[in-house]
Formats: sequence, structure tokens, C-alpha cells
Amino acid sequence: MNKKELIIFVIFTFFVGFLGAFVGLKVMESKLVTNENIKAPAASEESNVEDENMQLIQEAYELIEENYVEDVEDDQLLEGAIQGMIDTLDDPYSSYMNVEDIKDFNEQIESSFQGIGAEVSLVDGVVTIVSPIKNSPAEKAGLRPNDQILKVDDESLEGLDLNEAVAKIRGEKGTEVVLLVQRKGVSKPKEYTLVRDDIPIETVYDEIKEVDGKKTGIIEITSFSETTAEEFEEALTKLEDNGMEGLVIDVRGNPGGLLDSIEEILHHFVPSDVPYLQIEDGNGEVDKFYTNLDEKKPYPINVVVDEGSASASEILAVAMKEIGYDIVGEKTFGKGTVQQAVPIGKEKDQNTVKLTFYKWLSPEGNWIHEKGVKPTVEQKQPAYFYTSPIQVEKTFVLDQNDEEIAHAQTMLKGLGYDPKRDDGYFDEATKQAVESFQKDHDLQVTGEIDEKTAGKIETEILDIIRSGEEDLQLEKALDVLYK
Amino acid sequence: MNKKELIIFVIFTFFVGFLGAFVGLKVMESKLVTNENIKAPAASEESNVEDENMQLIQEAYELIEENYVEDVEDDQLLEGAIQGMIDTLDDPYSSYMNVEDIKDFNEQIESSFQGIGAEVSLVDGVVTIVSPIKNSPAEKAGLRPNDQILKVDDESLEGLDLNEAVAKIRGEKGTEVVLLVQRKGVSKPKEYTLVRDDIPIETVYDEIKEVDGKKTGIIEITSFSETTAEEFEEALTKLEDNGMEGLVIDVRGNPGGLLDSIEEILHHFVPSDVPYLQIEDGNGEVDKFYTNLDEKKPYPINVVVDEGSASASEILAVAMKEIGYDIVGEKTFGKGTVQQAVPIGKEKDQNTVKLTFYKWLSPEGNWIHEKGVKPTVEQKQPAYFYTSPIQVEKTFVLDQNDEEIAHAQTMLKGLGYDPKRDDGYFDEATKQAVESFQKDHDLQVTGEIDEKTAGKIETEILDIIRSGEEDLQLEKALDVLYK
Repeated sequence: MNKKELIIFVIFTFFVGFLGAFVGLKVMESKLVTNENIKAPAASEESNVEDENMQLIQEAYELIEENYVEDVEDDQLLEGAIQGMIDTLDDPYSSYMNVEDIKDFNEQIESSFQGIGAEVSLVDGVVTIVSPIKNSPAEKAGLRPNDQILKVDDESLEGLDLNEAVAKIRGEKGTEVVLLVQRKGVSKPKEYTLVRDDIPIETVYDEIKEVDGKKTGIIEITSFSETTAEEFEEALTKLEDNGMEGLVIDVRGNPGGLLDSIEEILHHFVPSDVPYLQIEDGNGEVDKFYTNLDEKKPYPINVVVDEGSASASEILAVAMKEIGYDIVGEKTFGKGTVQQAVPIGKEKDQNTVKLTFYKWLSPEGNWIHEKGVKPTVEQKQPAYFYTSPIQVEKTFVLDQNDEEIAHAQTMLKGLGYDPKRDDGYFDEATKQAVESFQKDHDLQVTGEIDEKTAGKIETEILDIIRSGEEDLQLEKALDVLYK
Repeated sequence: MNKKELIIFVIFTFFVGFLGAFVGLKVMESKLVTNENIKAPAASEESNVEDENMQLIQEAYELIEENYVEDVEDDQLLEGAIQGMIDTLDDPYSSYMNVEDIKDFNEQIESSFQGIGAEVSLVDGVVTIVSPIKNSPAEKAGLRPNDQILKVDDESLEGLDLNEAVAKIRGEKGTEVVLLVQRKGVSKPKEYTLVRDDIPIETVYDEIKEVDGKKTGIIEITSFSETTAEEFEEALTKLEDNGMEGLVIDVRGNPGGLLDSIEEILHHFVPSDVPYLQIEDGNGEVDKFYTNLDEKKPYPINVVVDEGSASASEILAVAMKEIGYDIVGEKTFGKGTVQQAVPIGKEKDQNTVKLTFYKWLSPEGNWIHEKGVKPTVEQKQPAYFYTSPIQVEKTFVLDQNDEEIAHAQTMLKGLGYDPKRDDGYFDEATKQAVESFQKDHDLQVTGEIDEKTAGKIETEILDIIRSGEEDLQLEKALDVLYK
């Protein structure tokens, strides 16, 4: 199935913060029991400290509940205490989940859910886009990796944890949400209005292309959900049955997902003589995991990545890199930890702690956390992939100097109307470029950038980006595949 | 004793966040016992919820301690849980205090301590100066009310509570600390280097002045500590014995302190027919407090306040205002709550929760929280009291346009070299003002503002501010006293 033929639904995930190489609830419940069994004969000194601390926490709980000047809810104190303990870990991937959070979470790993279609993470305490999902409201609106979301519907996200922030951004299909977004290198935050939509069910898209006269398969993986490994195997088998002579795996913008899923996929590629993955626990003990594969695939393979490739995508990228395949594109996100969601209490669906249990290491034992995977073949997209929308508060004219004019210049160049500068100074050449663009697009030829002209420039640029025709990273991957 | 004759030591308090109208540990311990007695027969449903929540908190505690990928300390989880519960209150005046915090706290109410001499509060999560203490390192360095402290010795304060932030700022006498400070209306944060010093022991300063031929007392109260009420009574008696015919009470920059202290002082002024204070608890029950005073003082009185007057200072200001005295100056800070520090656990000195127990209301029942007390006679200080230091990265010359030039213009005007504009444009008149200033102060006459000239302008301005000669608020208070 070719992804271009699909109507792709939209998604709001926060996989990076949430699923990221996740092992699953079921496994965890038995694991917890094990832990409790282990704990019973622990040193009594340790449990004395714990008993005393619990006594203190209870005193504080009662003190606050009975004496604070305003009303205090029991649940508020419960959530506050657990979140407060987690906050001391200084780990953006650990969090407390209440009933609402767990509902969202289950929707995400199991079936469809509704949102704006961007994966977010906390970076320096600010909600930051890891990557917008293909064809999502977030992507259509022009949001980019590393955009910081400051406000949602005029409410500040400051001080919220990732789950709380995401709860504000998510919502039912068809509803509107207004985001105030700060982009690096842009002086003022801007507002984006998005209409929420459904998520995609499919996570794997494949096509076959003739490259240097060879049948070349391209498999794109958009996230690692429960069905991804199976989808991937189907696609791979189909391509191989069709006589594929080389394979490009594209995990750009893929924020990760279930650990199981990426493990199954690696079983197709990593031979049994090296671990495909290493997992290190809190005591520094390392488990190495192996496939039972005799040898590598008979055809060349490479993997395309960008700064939105995180977690499970990085497990794939670094493993493929270390067994000798090319990695093409840009440095990846850098998430090297594994979380588990552990239900607590008797009613197992009511309260859950998502906690970072493990580090994952590459086959050779490297930890890419906060570093990312460096490609073997670096390739950026054209400059206009990284520019901001043009904010036209007043029509821009000859001799003006403005950051917004710089964005327009970069885009005009991308559209073939090169003004020969992109520093934001509106010179004669820029005027001529604008005039040519206006002539070609049935706009009034003024040589000035008004709202209508800026809007048309942006639409044309987004069309190019979506068409995939100027996808330099994919081109490069295909280009080096048989070299 | 005249305050001008004193060598005033320096202080770091965070009274506003800390003492603010504080009732005292001793009282509180017995109070706590009362609460526990009350609690025993409480509804069993309520205590079931609590038991279940404590069970959940304990499960989360164990889960984190045993499974988190990095080492976790028991104390870290204890503090996190208590701080997390307090964080849900969204009250900057409630906090958890560990052994270190309590030590600092006791030093503050009892004797001397060491720091930079600024009272700070959390405003929108940012550590904000309420007011620098007179002659403190903070005041000498030019810090002002509402300045935001972003970093201390290059460490960000983001996400810290008030106690944690203060712990970073405080330190031993003689040590240096570098603050990164953001001032409203100034585009970039600036660094200030301060040398920490001792606190003042005295909190009350008095003098007598001839105004309209009348012997006029001025009593300044810098904070409300354990000795303040006694110091105040001594000063008042001495002034009255000397035949004082009118009194100005100055609580500018006074961040508050012990509730006892201001209560005793109000006993001198508020007659028994109105409450001098009302206290409202969490159930909305209100206690009214009365003096046994027959009548008001026979001489006129007014109170001088500014935006640094907080908490106990506002109890004084609003009470005096409502019984008919003038309040002169600027709107006060706006803190209308009362905290108590309650030790928890068996070792009473190890862990303490400082919690907002009450609202305090004015004699007439008004709550000034986040509103402040509006003066009856508004009077600002000269413009140069509110300007920033001049940051000279490159010498400023004719025809330049810069915010820093605006600060210099305001200061030059204050020094009698009026450039007739303060918009930051360096025009011919500004050049002439700079030249005159340079001539009068033995500087090279360049007509340009270089680092040396800017430094001299600032020094001259600080000298005027410290001399008290241009204190328009105090002048106004004396001016209206007998009207």
C-alpha cells in the first residue's frame, strides 16, 4: 500500500514522553509482585526509614487538609504527593497518571484517539514539539520540531508536567484549539489555530521505486504501536516477494512507542552474533538481547532519520548503524530510557506511575540519551523546510528590514524566485521576485508582501513539502544505497 | 537614636514569604495537639479516604525507590511528597522546611543572620524582590522592588520554591554572589555582584524634626521581629516625653514579620471601639481582636508606605487608614494571609511545614490580599528612584537611540542637568547636559556617555537617594500632617 493513496488521519501522541520504548502494563503487574516479594526480607533499617517517612507524610497530609485556609481535596493531596516524589527525579519521562491520563494512554497504544497530531516532550520545563505527525492538523498548520508551546487557548502551560500539558492540548475531533508557539530564532511567539482530528491506525507505509535501474523498497514507520511489527513484516515480505533489490527505512518524525514492536522489527536485520539491544537497570546490571538470525539481508539497506526520530526509532537507527548500514539525514532526538506504567492501589485502573526503569544501550553499549544518533551521511532538507510562517502585521515594502521578510525570501527562493538574499532586507531584487511570483499566481502585482501574497507563498511551499518532490534526505538515501 | 548615626548592618530576609504575620512555633505546637484531639472522632468515611491515599503514596514511594533507574534517597522522596502536596495549594507562602531551612528561619526571628539584604517573594513562579533593606548589599548594588532574580551564581532558580531559592542566595558574610536580574521594562537581564553581610539587629529608628514650628516625630520600622514592639514603645515614649506634637510612621520597604509584634504596636493607636484586626480561618469563622485603649493619641499621625510595605506593615497601614489617619506614598504589596510553622514528626526540629492558616482582615473586614492598601495621599519618589543602572556596552554618542540612554537622561535630570527628554534619543540637548555634568565632575568633557561617565552619574544618584534629601514621600507626609 502506498502512503500517498491514503487519507491519513491525525494523531496526538506524546509517545516520547509517554510510550517511548515501553514494555506494557501486563508484564509490569507481575513484575511488581516480584518486587514486593523481593522487598519483604529487606534490611529492617531501610524499612524503618520508610516507616518514619510515611508517618511524616501522613502528618503533613493531615495538617494541610485540616488547617489550610482554603478547601483542600483528598485527591489533590494524593496526586501532589506522588507527583512531588516523581518531580525530585528530574526526569521528564516519569510521571503520575490519574484516571483521565490512563484513559488517554490506553487509547493511544490500543486504537484510535483524537488530537492535533504532534509529539511533545518537556525540554527545560517547556512543552516542546518533537515532531508533528504526517498530514496532522499540527503539520498542516506549519508546526515544526523544537517549537515551544507556551499557551493553549490562552492558558499558560508553565509549571505543568507533560501529562497535564497534553491534557490541555488534546480534545475531541472537530474542536478548535489555539496554541501560542515560540520558535527558535523568532523574536515573538505566534498563535496557531488547529482543528483536532482522529489518529491514523496505520503506522507503516511502503512503496517501490526504480533507482539506478534497481527495484528499491521504501518503508516508512510513523510510530511503534501494537500493530507496527506485524504491519512491517507484511510490507517487508511483500517487497521481497516483488524482487526488491535494496531497502530504505524512513523513521523521520517517528517518536517511538512500544519496545516489543521495535524488538520484533530488529529480528529481521541484526544477526545473532551481536546483541540488537542492551538494557541496563538501576543497579547497573546489563541484559543483552540477541536474535536467532544467521546473516544479514542480501540487499543493501539504509535508514533515514531526523531530529524528530526518538526512542524506538533511535534503537533501530543505532543498531543498524553499528552493524554497518548507513544512517542518512540529521541527528536524532536523544531519548535513551525505558519507562513502565505501573498501576498502584487496589483498583488497578485508577492510579498509575509511569517510571523510568531502564537505560537502553546500543549493540556496542553506547548510551545516546540527550546526545542522539549521528547520521553517517548528513543531509538537511532545503532551507524552507525550517522557516516560520510569514507574519504580516503591516504590508512589507521596499527598503524595510524585518525578520518576517527573511522568511519570505527563503520561501521565494524555494519556489524558484530567488531574491539572492535572505537577511530580511527588502531590496530591489526582492521586489522583483515578489512581482514575478504575483504575476505567475494571479495576484495583483504590487511588489509588496501583503497578507494575501504571504499566504499564497506559504501555501505553495507547503504543497512542495507535502508532495515529497523536494525531499533531499530521501533522495540522498536512495542515492547512496547502491554506492 | 537617629538612624543616620548608626552603622546599619545588612540583612537577608524573606519575611514576606516566611514570617509574614507569623504566630510562633510555641503556640502552634499546642494548637496542633488540639487539632489532633478534634480529629479523633471525625467521620470514618473521611479517614478511610485518607488511609487509602496513604497506602497509594506508600506504594508509589516503594516503586520509585526500588525501581528508578538512578539512585533515590529516602529524604528526597519525603521532601518531594510533602512539597508536592503543598504545591497543589498554589500558595507561594506555604512551604516545606527541612533542617537547613529551619535553622535559617530561627536565625531570622531570633538574632542576626547573613545575606544580601533583600526580601523576596514568588510572583508567577519567579523569585521577585519585594524590597531591598536599607544600606544592604542589595540596595547598594541598585536592586529594586519587583526586580526578578533569574539566576544565582549562574544557577537557574526556575522551578525552585521560595526556600530553595533563598538558600541559594543566602550565605556567609564576606562571600560573593552573582545575581542575574530581570527588571520590568528592561529588555535584557543584567548581572549584579554582591558581597554578603550581617543583618541589622535594630528594627526601629526614630528622630525628631521641626515642621511648621512643631516638634514632629518620625519612627521608621524596618521589619517586625521579636524585639520590634519593645523598640517601638521605647521610641514612642521618648518622643512623647520630648513633647512631640505629631508623628509620622514610616514602614516603606518593611516586608512584615511576627504578628505579635504588630499587634502590640496597634495597641498604642487603635481605640477599643473597633477591632484592630480580624482573623478568618479555613471554615470562614472570624475572630475580631480589640485593644483596651480609651481614645486615640492627642496628636496627628500618618503612615508612609510603598510597594515594599507588606504583611504586618499592611496590617498597620490599613488599620490606621480605617480609623481616619492619612496613608502617604504608594500602593502596598498585598499580602493578606497568616502562616504558621508547624513541626512534624517526633524530632520536632527536623521537619516543619509552613502553612497558610488564616486570612487577616482590616478593622472593617476588608481583605487586601493581592490588592494592597491604597494610600489616601499618593506620592511617588522622583523618577530616578525607579530607573535601572546604565548598561554601557559601547559608548553612547549623539544621534543614537537606546533604552540605556533613557535611564541616563532620567538620572541627569535628577542631578539638575535636564536634557528635556527621557525617551532614549541622544540629541544635542542631551549632549550638552552630559558635557555640563562632565565639566562639574572633573571628567573628560566628551559629550558622550562612556562607562566612566555613566558610573559617575549613578554614584551621584545613589548618593542623593541615600541622603534622604530628595525623599518626596516623607516630605509629603510631613507636609500633610498638620493640614
